[in-house]
Amino acid sequence: MKEECGVVGIYSLDNRDVAPLIFYALYSLQHRGQESCGITVVNEKFATQKEMGLVSEVFDFEKLTALKGSFGVGHVRYSTCGESRIENAAPFVVSHSLGYLSIGHNGNIANSAELRKGLEEQGEVFISTTDTEVIAHLIVRGLIRTGDIVDSIKEAMKKLNGSYSLAIATDDSVIAVRDPLGIKPLCLGRLGDTYIVASESVALDSIGAEYLRDVEPGEILVINESGLQSHRGASRGRTAHCMFEYVYFSRPDSILDSRLVYTVRERIGEIMAEDDHVDVDFVMAVPDSAIPFALGYARARGLPYREGLIKNRYVGRTFILPKQKARELAVRVKLNPLITNVKGKRVVLFDDSIVRGTTSARIIQILKDAGAAEVHMRIGSPPIISPCYLGIDMPTKEELIASSGDVEEVRRKIGADSLKYLSIEGLLRAIGKDERQLCLGCLTGDYPVPLEQHEQVKLVEYIK
Amino acid sequence: MKEECGVVGIYSLDNRDVAPLIFYALYSLQHRGQESCGITVVNEKFATQKEMGLVSEVFDFEKLTALKGSFGVGHVRYSTCGESRIENAAPFVVSHSLGYLSIGHNGNIANSAELRKGLEEQGEVFISTTDTEVIAHLIVRGLIRTGDIVDSIKEAMKKLNGSYSLAIATDDSVIAVRDPLGIKPLCLGRLGDTYIVASESVALDSIGAEYLRDVEPGEILVINESGLQSHRGASRGRTAHCMFEYVYFSRPDSILDSRLVYTVRERIGEIMAEDDHVDVDFVMAVPDSAIPFALGYARARGLPYREGLIKNRYVGRTFILPKQKARELAVRVKLNPLITNVKGKRVVLFDDSIVRGTTSARIIQILKDAGAAEVHMRIGSPPIISPCYLGIDMPTKEELIASSGDVEEVRRKIGADSLKYLSIEGLLRAIGKDERQLCLGCLTGDYPVPLEQHEQVKLVEYIK
Amino acid sequence: MKEECGVVGIYSLDNRDVAPLIFYALYSLQHRGQESCGITVVNEKFATQKEMGLVSEVFDFEKLTALKGSFGVGHVRYSTCGESRIENAAPFVVSHSLGYLSIGHNGNIANSAELRKGLEEQGEVFISTTDTEVIAHLIVRGLIRTGDIVDSIKEAMKKLNGSYSLAIATDDSVIAVRDPLGIKPLCLGRLGDTYIVASESVALDSIGAEYLRDVEPGEILVINESGLQSHRGASRGRTAHCMFEYVYFSRPDSILDSRLVYTVRERIGEIMAEDDHVDVDFVMAVPDSAIPFALGYARARGLPYREGLIKNRYVGRTFILPKQKARELAVRVKLNPLITNVKGKRVVLFDDSIVRGTTSARIIQILKDAGAAEVHMRIGSPPIISPCYLGIDMPTKEELIASSGDVEEVRRKIGADSLKYLSIEGLLRAIGKDERQLCLGCLTGDYPVPLEQHEQVKLVEYIK
Amino acid sequence: MKEECGVVGIYSLDNRDVAPLIFYALYSLQHRGQESCGITVVNEKFATQKEMGLVSEVFDFEKLTALKGSFGVGHVRYSTCGESRIENAAPFVVSHSLGYLSIGHNGNIANSAELRKGLEEQGEVFISTTDTEVIAHLIVRGLIRTGDIVDSIKEAMKKLNGSYSLAIATDDSVIAVRDPLGIKPLCLGRLGDTYIVASESVALDSIGAEYLRDVEPGEILVINESGLQSHRGASRGRTAHCMFEYVYFSRPDSILDSRLVYTVRERIGEIMAEDDHVDVDFVMAVPDSAIPFALGYARARGLPYREGLIKNRYVGRTFILPKQKARELAVRVKLNPLITNVKGKRVVLFDDSIVRGTTSARIIQILKDAGAAEVHMRIGSPPIISPCYLGIDMPTKEELIASSGDVEEVRRKIGADSLKYLSIEGLLRAIGKDERQLCLGCLTGDYPVPLEQHEQVKLVEYIK
Repeated sequence: MKEECGVVGIYSLDNRDVAPLIFYALYSLQHRGQESCGITVVNEKFATQKEMGLVSEVFDFEKLTALKGSFGVGHVRYSTCGESRIENAAPFVVSHSLGYLSIGHNGNIANSAELRKGLEEQGEVFISTTDTEVIAHLIVRGLIRTGDIVDSIKEAMKKLNGSYSLAIATDDSVIAVRDPLGIKPLCLGRLGDTYIVASESVALDSIGAEYLRDVEPGEILVINESGLQSHRGASRGRTAHCMFEYVYFSRPDSILDSRLVYTVRERIGEIMAEDDHVDVDFVMAVPDSAIPFALGYARARGLPYREGLIKNRYVGRTFILPKQKARELAVRVKLNPLITNVKGKRVVLFDDSIVRGTTSARIIQILKDAGAAEVHMRIGSPPIISPCYLGIDMPTKEELIASSGDVEEVRRKIGADSLKYLSIEGLLRAIGKDERQLCLGCLTGDYPVPLEQHEQVKLVEYIK
Repeated sequence: MKEECGVVGIYSLDNRDVAPLIFYALYSLQHRGQESCGITVVNEKFATQKEMGLVSEVFDFEKLTALKGSFGVGHVRYSTCGESRIENAAPFVVSHSLGYLSIGHNGNIANSAELRKGLEEQGEVFISTTDTEVIAHLIVRGLIRTGDIVDSIKEAMKKLNGSYSLAIATDDSVIAVRDPLGIKPLCLGRLGDTYIVASESVALDSIGAEYLRDVEPGEILVINESGLQSHRGASRGRTAHCMFEYVYFSRPDSILDSRLVYTVRERIGEIMAEDDHVDVDFVMAVPDSAIPFALGYARARGLPYREGLIKNRYVGRTFILPKQKARELAVRVKLNPLITNVKGKRVVLFDDSIVRGTTSARIIQILKDAGAAEVHMRIGSPPIISPCYLGIDMPTKEELIASSGDVEEVRRKIGADSLKYLSIEGLLRAIGKDERQLCLGCLTGDYPVPLEQHEQVKLVEYIK
Repeated sequence: MKEECGVVGIYSLDNRDVAPLIFYALYSLQHRGQESCGITVVNEKFATQKEMGLVSEVFDFEKLTALKGSFGVGHVRYSTCGESRIENAAPFVVSHSLGYLSIGHNGNIANSAELRKGLEEQGEVFISTTDTEVIAHLIVRGLIRTGDIVDSIKEAMKKLNGSYSLAIATDDSVIAVRDPLGIKPLCLGRLGDTYIVASESVALDSIGAEYLRDVEPGEILVINESGLQSHRGASRGRTAHCMFEYVYFSRPDSILDSRLVYTVRERIGEIMAEDDHVDVDFVMAVPDSAIPFALGYARARGLPYREGLIKNRYVGRTFILPKQKARELAVRVKLNPLITNVKGKRVVLFDDSIVRGTTSARIIQILKDAGAAEVHMRIGSPPIISPCYLGIDMPTKEELIASSGDVEEVRRKIGADSLKYLSIEGLLRAIGKDERQLCLGCLTGDYPVPLEQHEQVKLVEYIK
Repeated sequence: MKEECGVVGIYSLDNRDVAPLIFYALYSLQHRGQESCGITVVNEKFATQKEMGLVSEVFDFEKLTALKGSFGVGHVRYSTCGESRIENAAPFVVSHSLGYLSIGHNGNIANSAELRKGLEEQGEVFISTTDTEVIAHLIVRGLIRTGDIVDSIKEAMKKLNGSYSLAIATDDSVIAVRDPLGIKPLCLGRLGDTYIVASESVALDSIGAEYLRDVEPGEILVINESGLQSHRGASRGRTAHCMFEYVYFSRPDSILDSRLVYTVRERIGEIMAEDDHVDVDFVMAVPDSAIPFALGYARARGLPYREGLIKNRYVGRTFILPKQKARELAVRVKLNPLITNVKGKRVVLFDDSIVRGTTSARIIQILKDAGAAEVHMRIGSPPIISPCYLGIDMPTKEELIASSGDVEEVRRKIGADSLKYLSIEGLLRAIGKDERQLCLGCLTGDYPVPLEQHEQVKLVEYIK
C-alpha cells in the first residue's frame, strides 16, 4: 500500500523528555500526512499514543506530558485508500523475544506483497495492511538470529525493494535508516545534546535544531547513550531521489540534499523562462505551491508577478460535497479569482503538475469567467505519464491525462491558450543532479528498482 | 493477562446478515465485559468493527447494516488492568498465508507468557498483550504446516494450558472451541438454519434461538455450508467447570451444562438453610445477584423474604470519586437502605462472595446505621482463599480476606453478628457435580491445570 | 411541555463547595430524568454547567472542581418530545435588572401557553420551549416591581396553574418553592450546617443528610446566610399529591410526606390480596418496580414469591432497534424468562401500571412461551383512563388501553388469564390519604386544577 | 461584548432549499469567526442548527439536508472573551407574540449595556451576554406595539448606538439591516431567483451569485415572496466604514463599496512607495495578508518581490503551547524563514498592522537569525493608538504599542532597522474616501458615535 508519510526520531543525551519536541517536529511535517499520527517514547517501557486526526487534534498538553521518555519516534500518515483504519496508524509497535521495536516508515516497498507472502508461508501473521509491519517482521527475524540490530537491519535492507526512510525506537536507541537509492528524504540535526532525524529539515527548524546533513542513501544511523554511529547498510551504484519532493511534496523551506527546495522551484521558473516568449500582461500562480515557479519565471523574463486567485485558508479536509451540482458551486469556495486583476488580461499561470487535468481545466475556466483574455499554462514539472510505485499517491496510468496524449491534446482538454511543461533536462538542471541521481519513474516509466509486471499491476490490489 | 469476556459465533446457512444477531447476542452478554466490544463478519472479505465502550454505544444502525456477511464472531471484553488499549480489543483479526482468522476468546492461558516467549524466540512479533494473539499464532503455525484448520486447532490445544472458549471465523467457517476441562462456558443453539455458539444461553434467548447443548470440553465445532461437524480436540480424564460461573458470574437465566443457573443458586440457599437456625425477622439480599440464594433460604426455613437495600440503577462505570471523603458519601448513591423495613429488625443478609471484605463491611454498616438489630451474613459460596489464574479477575492472595483468617476473624472484620459460608460439599451438591468436574482452585488452592510457581507469581507481571 | 425532572438546591452555611454534593444528589435522582442535567453554583458570579447526557457522563472531577460556590441548584431533565434541545437544558439561568436567577423546575404549568402568550404580548421574547422560562419571566417581573424576591414568587404563584417544585439560586440565596397543591414532591434535609432541598429524600441519603420534612404545599423556603426562613406563598383548601409518585415514579427508598414509598407499595399488594382468591403456584413481578407489590401480596396471601423474569441491567437508552422484526427479537434482550421457574406453573404477575397495553401483552406472551400454565395479571394502580396534564408523560387518551374498554376487554387484549387492578379506594387506603389530598386526574379525569378544554387539547401542541 | 462575525441571509423565490447555499456562504466567511456557527431555515417552522466549531466541523451532509426551508440566515462567530458559551452562539432565535425571529449580527453596540439595563428595569430577562439578544428585545418590543417589522426595526435603530450588520429571518422574510454609519460591511447579490445578503462579496462568489451592490448605511432590505423592498431606516450626515476591513479584516477578493479590497491594499503599497527611498535588495511580506502591500510597493519602486517566510498551513486554532519555553520553540512551527533568500540581504518587510508589537519583534528576530542584513518594516496601516469599540477585537490602550510612544520608539522595541507606517492621508487616498466616510477611531481616538466615558471603560467589563 502506498503511503505518503513523515517520520521523526529524537534522542536526548541529557535526558530531556522528547515528546514535546517530537510533537513540534510532527506539526511541521503535517503536510506529509493528515490521516493519523503517533508518538512512541521509551523510558524503560514503551509508551505510544496514536490516533486518527491531525497532530494538533490528537495531542494536547495532558497527553504530551504523560509521554515520559528521553528518546522516541513520531509519525504522520496519509492513506491513499478510502478506508482508514486505526490498525494502520503508526508508529507500529511490536514486542519480540528481546524487547520492543517502534517503527515509523515513509515510502513504499515494491515487493512488500511478495515478502509478506513469504513470511506468511513461514507461519507469520499480520494484523495491518502496512509495509511497516513487513519491515518489522524482517528486522525482528534477523535480530533473533543475529542478536544485533544493525546486522538485522542490513539483512532486511537486502530484501526490501522500494523506498523507505525509517525512524526506529529500540529499547536503548533511535535508529534512522534510508533506502540505498535515497528515494524518500531523511535528514539529521542537532540541538545541544539532542539529536533529531526527520523527513524534512523544517522539522529541525521547528525545534530550533541545526541541520547537519541528509542521512545518506543506504545509511543506518544509530543514536544512543554512546552518541551517533553511522553504518553502511546497503549501496547501489546510483541514487534515485524522488523528483516530486523537489517539485511539490516537500515544504519550500526544507533543505533536501543541502539544497533549499524553494530555490530549486525558483530556478525551475527561471529555466522555463529561457525559451518562452509568450506575450502576457503578468505572471501568476495557483497558490501556494506554484508561487516560487511564477516568481522565478517573472523575474527572469522581466514580467510583473501578480496574484489572481485567492485561496480560502479554512477549506479543510472535512469538507462535504453533497452532490455533483454542489461540487461545481464549491469550486469558488476553495479558490476565488481577483476579477479586477485578471479582467481583460493575458496571463501566464503556473501550477506544479497536471495529474488528471480536471483541476487545471476548472481553474482556467474560473479565470476565463473572470474575464482573463488569455491563460497560458506553465507546469513546473515534466508530464506525468506513469504511476508512482514508490510512495507518491497517484491515479492509474489511464487516468493520467499526459499518458495518452501529446501536450497539444492536454492543452485543448484543459482549455489553456498555450501549455508548456518543464523539460526533463530543465528539471535535472534546476535540481543540479543527473538522471542517475533522481527517480524519474513517473516521467519516463523507467523506475530505479526492478518492478515485476505483476507488481506494477497488483501492488495495490494484493491487500484489500 | 486475565480477561473476563463473552464470545459469540453465528453462521447463517440461508445467507442472512448475521451482524444484527451478533449484536443482540453481545448485548445479552454485556455483563461479561464492558470495556470494549467488536464484531467480525465475513463476506469473502473480513469486515471488523471494534471499539472501546458498551455494545449499545459502539454499534448503531448505520454500523450494523454496514457489516454485511452471513457468518461471523463477536466479543465483549473486560480488562483487569487499569490501562485499556484499543490494540487489545477483540475479535483479534490476523491475515496469514492462507487467508484470515478472527478470534474471540474467553478465558486465561496460564502458560501464555511461556508460549509467547517461545514464539518470540522463533522470530514472531506481537502487537498486543492478549492471550488471543498467542492463540492466533499457534493456530496459524499449525495451519501453514498441515493445511487443515481442525488439525491446527488440535495441535494448538495440546500446547495451551488454561481456560479458553473460542469463537473463530475463518474464510468459510465459524469454529467453536472449548478447552478440555471446559473451564469457561460455551453453548450451542439454533434458530432455523442459523447456528449460534455463545458463552451463555441468554445470548441464544436474545435472538430467539433454541438451546441445543453445551459445547463439550475439548470439542471443536465447525459450522460451515456443510452444516455442523464435531471434532474431538483434546480430552482429560476430568472436567473443571468454573464454580464461579454458577455462583456469580453467569446470568441467572443462563443454562450451564443443562442446569439453569438460577435454580443452582436457589438450591444453594436451600442447602444453607439446612443447618442454620439463627432466629431472625426476615431474609434479605444484596441486590441483584444474591436474591435467589435468599429466596431459596427463606422458603426452606419458612422465613419471610423482604427487600432491605435499593440499588441505584444508574450508577455507571464512569462514576468519578473525587476524594476519599467523597468515596464514603458515595456509598449510599449506589445502595440505599429501606430504613422502615430494617429498623429494629434481625436479618439474614445474603451476598454471593466476600473478596476483600470492604464492601461487606460497608453494607453491614449501612444496615446497622439504618437501625438493624442484628445482621447475620450468609455467603452463597465457600471462602475464597486463593487467586484465580484461569479467567476471573481477583486480587492477590494477601488481599483476600479469607486467605489469612478463619470465619470468626472475617466476621469480626466485617462487623456481622454471625457469618456462614456455603460449604464446598454444599456447593457440589447444589451444582450436582463432584470435585473432579469443577474447578475449585480459588476455594482450595488446588488448580485443575499444572501451574509452575513462577507462573502463579509472574503471570500478570510478565507483560506490563 | 411536560417534563419529568428532578431538582436539588444546596446551601452551605460554612462555605463548603456544594458542587460535589449537588452532583451526588443528582446522581440519586437520575431516574427522574436522563436527557440532560446541569448545576449552577454561585460565588459572587454564577457558574453553570449543563449538557445533554447522564449525570455521570456530563460531570467529571475537573468540571466539578471548577464549579466553586457555597450554594447552588441542580437539575436532571427528561423530555417527552422526540427532539431534545440544549436550549431546554436546566437549570435555566437569566440575568435581570437586579442580578441573576438560576431555576430548576419539576412539574408542568397547565396555563403555561396562556401565560407565555400574555408575556409575549407585552413584548417579552422566549428562547426555549420550557415552562421554566415562563416562570423566570414571571418572577423577574415581580422582582423588578417589588424589589422583593419572596413577594415576586408569591405573585407568580398566583398566576401559575399547575405543578411546580422549584429550586432557585439567587445572588445570595437558595429558594425552594412547591405549588399550593403539592403535586410534585420536594423535601428538606440537613447535613451539619448545610441545607438541602430535593425532589426526593434519596438525594438527602446520597450525601448523608438527615430528612427534616417535606416542603409544604404552597411553601416558599428561603435559605441564605441568615439560615432558613419559611414563607406561605399560596394555599388551597386541599392538596393534590401525584399518586403516581407513590405507585411508580419515585424511588422505593424515598420518603414522601413522611411515608416510605416502599411501604406504600407493599401495602398495595396486601390490599389487593384481601379479596383475591385466584389459585396459583406463586407470585412474581415485572422487575424492578413491581417487586414490593408482589412481596406484599404474597405475604398477605401466604403464597410463595419467586422470580420469573430477569432484566438485562445493560439495556441502555441508546439501544437502536433497526426494524420491526428486530423489535420482536429485542424483547428477550431486555427481559428473559426463567423457564425452569415458570414452566407449567400458574402465576400471579404484578406490574405497576398498564398504559398502552403492548408491553403487558408482550411480557405475558414471553411467560406463556416459557410454558406458564396461567398468568394472572395484577396491577398496582387503578386503570389509567385520562392523560396527565401535570407532569407525567403519557400518551393521548385514545392510546390509553383502559380509556376505551372495561377490564375484561383489557384482559383479553393483553392475553392474561385474569386481570385485576388496584381500586381507587384501595389506593387511598394504601397511601393513607383521601381524594382531597391526592391528584387522581389520570384515574378519574377529574383534575385538581381547572383545565380549559383547549388547554387539555393543545397543551403539548402549542409550542412545537 | 465585542464580536467579529459574519452574517448571511438567503431567500429563494423559487423554493429551493437554502441551507446548502448558506453553508457555502458561511464557509467563505469563516475568516470572520471560528468559534461557533449556525444556520436557521424557515419552512413554516423555524429550524436552527448551531454549535461550537468551524463550519466544516459543525455541518455535514445529514445535518444540511435535514434543514429544509426556502429562506434563512447564517452566522459565524468569533469571541473576544476567553470563555465561549453555547448560549452565545448565533443565529439567536426568539419566539414572541407574533411568531419567531432568528438574528445574525456583526458589529458592536456601544450602548448595549445601557439598553440592556433599561430593558431589564422593565422586567426583561437575558440568557446570553450578546448584543444580539438586546437587539432582539428591541425589535420585538416595537413589533408588538406597531405590528410592523420594518417600523419596529426603524425604532430599534434609533436606540442602537454602534455598528451592526444584521441578517434576520422572520416568519415570511429575510431582512438585512446595516447601521446608519455603515460601519460593518454588508452586500447584496442574486443568483437567478435567489437573493443573498452577506458580510462580504466572497460569500456571493462561493455560490456563483452576482454582486449587485452594498446594502446602504441605514438601509433596511426586506426580501420575501414579493421580491426585494428597500426601506430607509435611519441616516446620518456621514458614513463611517471601518478602515480595518480594507486593511486587514475582509478577504482580499471581497468587494467593499464597489472597490476590490485587494486593489486597495496594492494601492497602499504604491502610496507607501512614493516617498520611501530605503536601499534594499528586495521586498517581502508577512504571509498572507501583507502580500498585496508588498507587491504594490515593489512594483511602484521597481524592486524585486520575493518570499522570505513560509507559513505552516496546518497550524490550527487547537495548538497547545505547554510552557513559556515551548512558546518560543513554537514560533518557527508557524513561520519559518527561507534562509537562502534572506541571508545577507537588506529587505523591506510588510505587515498589515502592529498591535502589541510582540509578533513583529519575533518575526524580525527570525529574519535576523536567518542572516538578514537589514529589515525595514513597513506597515500597511497607520499606528493604532486607541481601542476599537465598534467591533474589532483589540487589547486595551495600554497594551497598544503605538499608543504610548512615537514611531522611533516602536522601531526600537521591535528591532527593525527602519519603520514606516501608512499615513492617514495615504489611507484615505488608497480607499478613495475622506475622513467623513470612514471610521478612524482606532487611529485617532475620534469615534463616529458618541461614547460616554464609562462606556469606553466598562463596555467589556459590564457583563462578565
